[in-house]
Amino acid sequence: MHKPLPAKGTRDFESSQIYKRNYIIDIIKKNFTKYGYSPLETPSFEKTSTLLGKYGDEGERLIFKILKSGNFLKGLNPAELDFEDVSNLANKICDKALKYDLTVPFARYVSQHFNELTFPFKRSQIQNVWRADKPQKGRFREFLQCDADVVGSKSLMQEIEFIHLFDNIFNDLNLNGCIIKLNNRKLLLGLCEILDCEDKFSILVNQLDKLDKVESKKIKDILIIKGFSSDQVDSIFDLISKSKNIGSNIDFFKKFYEKSSIGIQGLNELEFIFKYFSKQKLLITNLVFDISLARGIDYYTGVIFEVVQKDKSFGSIAGGGRYDNLTEIFGLKDTSGVGISFGLDRIFLTLDKLKLFPEFRSKMIKVLFTNFGTDYNEDIIKFTNALRNADIVADFYPDSIPLKKQLKYANQKEIPFVILYGEEERKSKFLRLKNMKSGDQYELSINQIISKLKKTATP
Amino acid sequence: MHKPLPAKGTRDFESSQIYKRNYIIDIIKKNFTKYGYSPLETPSFEKTSTLLGKYGDEGERLIFKILKSGNFLKGLNPAELDFEDVSNLANKICDKALKYDLTVPFARYVSQHFNELTFPFKRSQIQNVWRADKPQKGRFREFLQCDADVVGSKSLMQEIEFIHLFDNIFNDLNLNGCIIKLNNRKLLLGLCEILDCEDKFSILVNQLDKLDKVESKKIKDILIIKGFSSDQVDSIFDLISKSKNIGSNIDFFKKFYEKSSIGIQGLNELEFIFKYFSKQKLLITNLVFDISLARGIDYYTGVIFEVVQKDKSFGSIAGGGRYDNLTEIFGLKDTSGVGISFGLDRIFLTLDKLKLFPEFRSKMIKVLFTNFGTDYNEDIIKFTNALRNADIVADFYPDSIPLKKQLKYANQKEIPFVILYGEEERKSKFLRLKNMKSGDQYELSINQIISKLKKTATP
Repeated sequence: MHKPLPAKGTRDFESSQIYKRNYIIDIIKKNFTKYGYSPLETPSFEKTSTLLGKYGDEGERLIFKILKSGNFLKGLNPAELDFEDVSNLANKICDKALKYDLTVPFARYVSQHFNELTFPFKRSQIQNVWRADKPQKGRFREFLQCDADVVGSKSLMQEIEFIHLFDNIFNDLNLNGCIIKLNNRKLLLGLCEILDCEDKFSILVNQLDKLDKVESKKIKDILIIKGFSSDQVDSIFDLISKSKNIGSNIDFFKKFYEKSSIGIQGLNELEFIFKYFSKQKLLITNLVFDISLARGIDYYTGVIFEVVQKDKSFGSIAGGGRYDNLTEIFGLKDTSGVGISFGLDRIFLTLDKLKLFPEFRSKMIKVLFTNFGTDYNEDIIKFTNALRNADIVADFYPDSIPLKKQLKYANQKEIPFVILYGEEERKSKFLRLKNMKSGDQYELSINQIISKLKKTATP
Repeated sequence: MHKPLPAKGTRDFESSQIYKRNYIIDIIKKNFTKYGYSPLETPSFEKTSTLLGKYGDEGERLIFKILKSGNFLKGLNPAELDFEDVSNLANKICDKALKYDLTVPFARYVSQHFNELTFPFKRSQIQNVWRADKPQKGRFREFLQCDADVVGSKSLMQEIEFIHLFDNIFNDLNLNGCIIKLNNRKLLLGLCEILDCEDKFSILVNQLDKLDKVESKKIKDILIIKGFSSDQVDSIFDLISKSKNIGSNIDFFKKFYEKSSIGIQGLNELEFIFKYFSKQKLLITNLVFDISLARGIDYYTGVIFEVVQKDKSFGSIAGGGRYDNLTEIFGLKDTSGVGISFGLDRIFLTLDKLKLFPEFRSKMIKVLFTNFGTDYNEDIIKFTNALRNADIVADFYPDSIPLKKQLKYANQKEIPFVILYGEEERKSKFLRLKNMKSGDQYELSINQIISKLKKTATP
């Protein structure tokens, strides 16, 4: 019989990984709370009608669908079943699907409870999402997203707040070298307006999105193939190169966008934000303008963010943007929102690589009672409880196997102290505490052991 | 357009519910850690081959199956598709399923990593599981289980430890009136052995399991219908009635089980546990023997537990037992385990009904900056950040709508303080802090506000 394995693209998390993941999650959570984002949790699966038609064709193919319970063919006429059109058939036999992101279920929640909610409505959401992606390094079929969103205000104070929130979180994680890239979809829209290629906006966004992975020469060629003129391509890349030094090129930008009201609006919004940050310093991150930042998600309409760490091995570690029309898909107009999302796996890999995780010894067993036979069981449980009640992580070995094997168990589990309690100790009323690293032994009462272990910083 | 709703049997959790749920989860987690149970997380879905054939026919029907991605009919010959046998067809087009409990994925994990693990292996697991049950009060299709298990030791010290763990957790939750019912499957096996009806063991277990919901007269009738003789039924119910007072009937029990070695073994095991607890007092729970306790789960083979609270409206709030052969289904023999499980929803309902939840004000917004126009935005964000950096949950209103509306927002969100900052305040360098309940106002510097709010216990 061969070993049973988890399903493709999914992972078990062992304690050491859970401690590290929770370290990141707790820092994110603490900051979400401090900034007034109260938590929300939505179910793992939604009705397919809630999720379908929201993520584009490519996203839609990656949604995991759940088969109807019981007779999933009930009400279907076998003659009607079209085996060629599997996607249509799937939607007939499945009525639920695992959530693909946190934003669409959040939009469903806001639409559903619109009359009870107080706007602006700020919420945070830290939950798993599922995508039937091809698994690869840092990409899984089940992964955790950490989102904060505010809906119901168009104020740019929200964008400024999110930049501070990014900064605070990466500062608390001690993660140096983070760059917050900023752009505005309105500048890209304005660019297409000025170059008279508004019909190719999506193509431009999709290609710019690849600029950090693909060399620009190739992107230029693709844009030409997709119908851009070489003049248009030159203008686009000239603007990108001038954007690297926006400070000295601001007049050029203002002149360039003169004829596009949406472009001017985008420029003004960014100016407002950068002006604020010219006076208010960030703690650990750098804020840069990057007109080539596009973000692959359809629903963004305003300012967009992306955070990358210098060591770019794992791509962007956070992102976000403003969306003016998201709740519209659920019949709710004019509820502009802006939100950010942290990718736990990539932050994990970055911190792990840079050795930025603290030790988590406090959650591991600190002392183990060895077992010299059932005669001592009652005392051992009683003493172990006394240690536990003093908030010391304590355990006993449940069987009276040879001591050597019990000590081996303690070593394998990296338990720093063991207690020996046999006939001699029972008579003398002292327990023998052994430091597993130094080998030192002490004869102590249970209360003395408690105060000694409370004082000993776990090595 | 009507409102979009969550899928049947699933729930959104809003912040107030999340704080309460986390209050319970944190107490359970803290105790699991203290007792040396380190956390494990397994994926939300497993291969169907891992889950199928483990829960009996009734359980199996409740498993949510996930449709294969892409062309789920690939490799299937339409002529071969048997539309009459939907269950078989489902298994052909689905290769994954949402987990039904935490124990089987845990058994899969243990079998998979058998050679790397150190035994006895103690793990805790707090995760969602999914069942296509008919939703009703306190029963949902997605719900959280909190489990602790130890595998690799047959020592009864583990059973004793779990009783202490139950006791510690309900004590930390201040939940009075909890009864830990204890039985041993070996006594039920021995009973069948003595009455010569071993073939009807499962029927007996299933019927006894209903005794707290159905009157005993009915259960007796069903047992007769299912083939028990009236003598057998009388013996069973005589034993049950004598078990209510096991102390004075212990000799009767010893005599009754004389001829069943498994029965004697079961009796000795319980005697060992009760003897221990005659000397070691429990903090808040009561331990009682109940030979009618059966537990509906197939894999238990030894001691079984169930916790009920006096106010029985929500059924059992925790349970567990020893299973000798669970990993055998994955090809791993002789790895006895014992585990317990807490049902979050029922504990939640019980604490809520008895008003045992604390207040969670510390996570709510304590102070809100009102907004008198973009001229003050920079200062307001700066001041809000100063408050947040001092660990005060602070926020600003993002738009300069009429003050009356902003104060209404503060009241709706139960924010206890607001800060007014307009032209007068900017000139005087003092901010106006207003207590929303008393109406009192104070002119203070930002540092004075920080120290005042730090001192003020949130009302």
